[in-house]
Amino acid sequence: MYRDTIIASQKNISPFIHRTPVLTSQLINKITEADIFFKCENFQKMGAFKMRGAINAIMQLTDSQKEKGVVTHSSGNFAQALSLAAKKLGVKAYIVMPSSAPIVKQNAVLSYHGKITISKPTLKSRKQEANKIADKTGATFIHPSNNIDVIIGNSTSALELLEDFSDLDYIITPVGGGGLLSGTALSSYYFSEKCTVIGAEPFEVDDAYRSLKSGEIESNSTTKTIADGLKTQLGDINFPIIQKHVNKIIRVTEKDITEAMLLIWERMKIIIEPSSAVAFAAILKNKNNFKNKKVGIIISGGNVDLTKLPF
Amino acid sequence: MYRDTIIASQKNISPFIHRTPVLTSQLINKITEADIFFKCENFQKMGAFKMRGAINAIMQLTDSQKEKGVVTHSSGNFAQALSLAAKKLGVKAYIVMPSSAPIVKQNAVLSYHGKITISKPTLKSRKQEANKIADKTGATFIHPSNNIDVIIGNSTSALELLEDFSDLDYIITPVGGGGLLSGTALSSYYFSEKCTVIGAEPFEVDDAYRSLKSGEIESNSTTKTIADGLKTQLGDINFPIIQKHVNKIIRVTEKDITEAMLLIWERMKIIIEPSSAVAFAAILKNKNNFKNKKVGIIISGGNVDLTKLPF
Repeated sequence: MYRDTIIASQKNISPFIHRTPVLTSQLINKITEADIFFKCENFQKMGAFKMRGAINAIMQLTDSQKEKGVVTHSSGNFAQALSLAAKKLGVKAYIVMPSSAPIVKQNAVLSYHGKITISKPTLKSRKQEANKIADKTGATFIHPSNNIDVIIGNSTSALELLEDFSDLDYIITPVGGGGLLSGTALSSYYFSEKCTVIGAEPFEVDDAYRSLKSGEIESNSTTKTIADGLKTQLGDINFPIIQKHVNKIIRVTEKDITEAMLLIWERMKIIIEPSSAVAFAAILKNKNNFKNKKVGIIISGGNVDLTKLPF
Repeated sequence: MYRDTIIASQKNISPFIHRTPVLTSQLINKITEADIFFKCENFQKMGAFKMRGAINAIMQLTDSQKEKGVVTHSSGNFAQALSLAAKKLGVKAYIVMPSSAPIVKQNAVLSYHGKITISKPTLKSRKQEANKIADKTGATFIHPSNNIDVIIGNSTSALELLEDFSDLDYIITPVGGGGLLSGTALSSYYFSEKCTVIGAEPFEVDDAYRSLKSGEIESNSTTKTIADGLKTQLGDINFPIIQKHVNKIIRVTEKDITEAMLLIWERMKIIIEPSSAVAFAAILKNKNNFKNKKVGIIISGGNVDLTKLPF
């Protein structure tokens, strides 16, 4: 159903994104007793995989839609991604950010010419402000993760990884809103015979784990995790894909995340977000399950506040 | 004189080192208004270019010398490099480390099977201990930077860079003991028609700058710099090479170093040492001199204590 769409998306977005490198480390492989392939979306434009979904979603709009612009609400990477993608395509981007969003992230959006509206720091207020802007300007609302064109765009990262390494046994991604995990699951389903897709999530925000158990979209009562990209919940578009094509969700502790992040920084000399470390932590804490296997990890991004590190 | 030696060294050491990638960044190029090519020795084995010189130096020994082992004194990357190189070649490595050397660096040496002797934290004591070991064991002393085989090994990084990008106008390296700068200068001299080599150094330890001015090897009265790899002084083997083949030394402040380091971490998502940031800072503070030029930078290493960052 989506096979050709994904292939077309890969072609369409390629002038606007990096084909990111896949890194390996003998030392990491020795520690994990597995062959790990790190798909480095931290080296993607604006520092995260979200650029893929954002650019693909805008490209699907009609010319008259493009003229009116796009709107989203996000405090994180998608705000930057949509702003930069819109700028590259000559489209206006309206970004609703909660008043709690760090100045550094607001400045990044501004540097990409995104038009910021500040909302109260609640999901309700963010949605209201975005709706208001859509009503007033005719801009198309693009959800950061629960939008099929965003999911298809995101899927191209795993497609590239599978093109480079066709015999992976597993791909692991972090799961927050579900846009990366569902896209990865689609690519694995269409482009690999044997690859199993697994999500990784902090215990502190294990809504995806609970959702797969209960069969309904669960939410988090608290969000006390260092993995700030993973606090959101699944949506009605990506959840069915995850239910169908994702094998399981592995949960890890905050300590696991920090240790995994430090190990990657120290040994591989690359900067990854805590959210990305969640996927690697899932292997470190379950070494027996991945022993001698070929495992891809989507390093979702590298946007970290370097003045507030956990180590 | 050294042309064939460098080519032979490149071939000999290649099974034991990584051919490191050269990274570029559109954003960094926009900021500097130049084309910068980052030769990433932070991705080298043990995290620094020093692996090249260490392995080359040991390979030049006779079999009977190899049997007796090698000895050096170092508190930093060369201690790790010589230990790992020796391990790979089945040679014993005796490492004299000052009592002030961080436990984490001692542990790294131990993990590579280096035999540590702790000395008082003075250069005199370090030398004495190394001499004692050489006398007792017959091990060959290998200086971290003032040894022609080390310099030749180090030169292979710039050779690779020039093989990949033959039309560089400049290559900039940090200068501490002079082993990287002199090796780079040799490769540029033998393998490029037009490339000019420049050293970069903190104002706080500007002995190389002063040495080039005075024509004699100068030392530092204080060493208050964040660039811990650059506190040492030039030697009688590398200084004449630097005098002959290096265009000039650019000095930068501690603030310049921290800002340059932060910029690379934030924008390129790679972990570089303060010493490496010194070379990039030299461009940032002298943009007019490098405008529209093709500039290579040897990113010397990525071994940083992540719990003690300057930002």
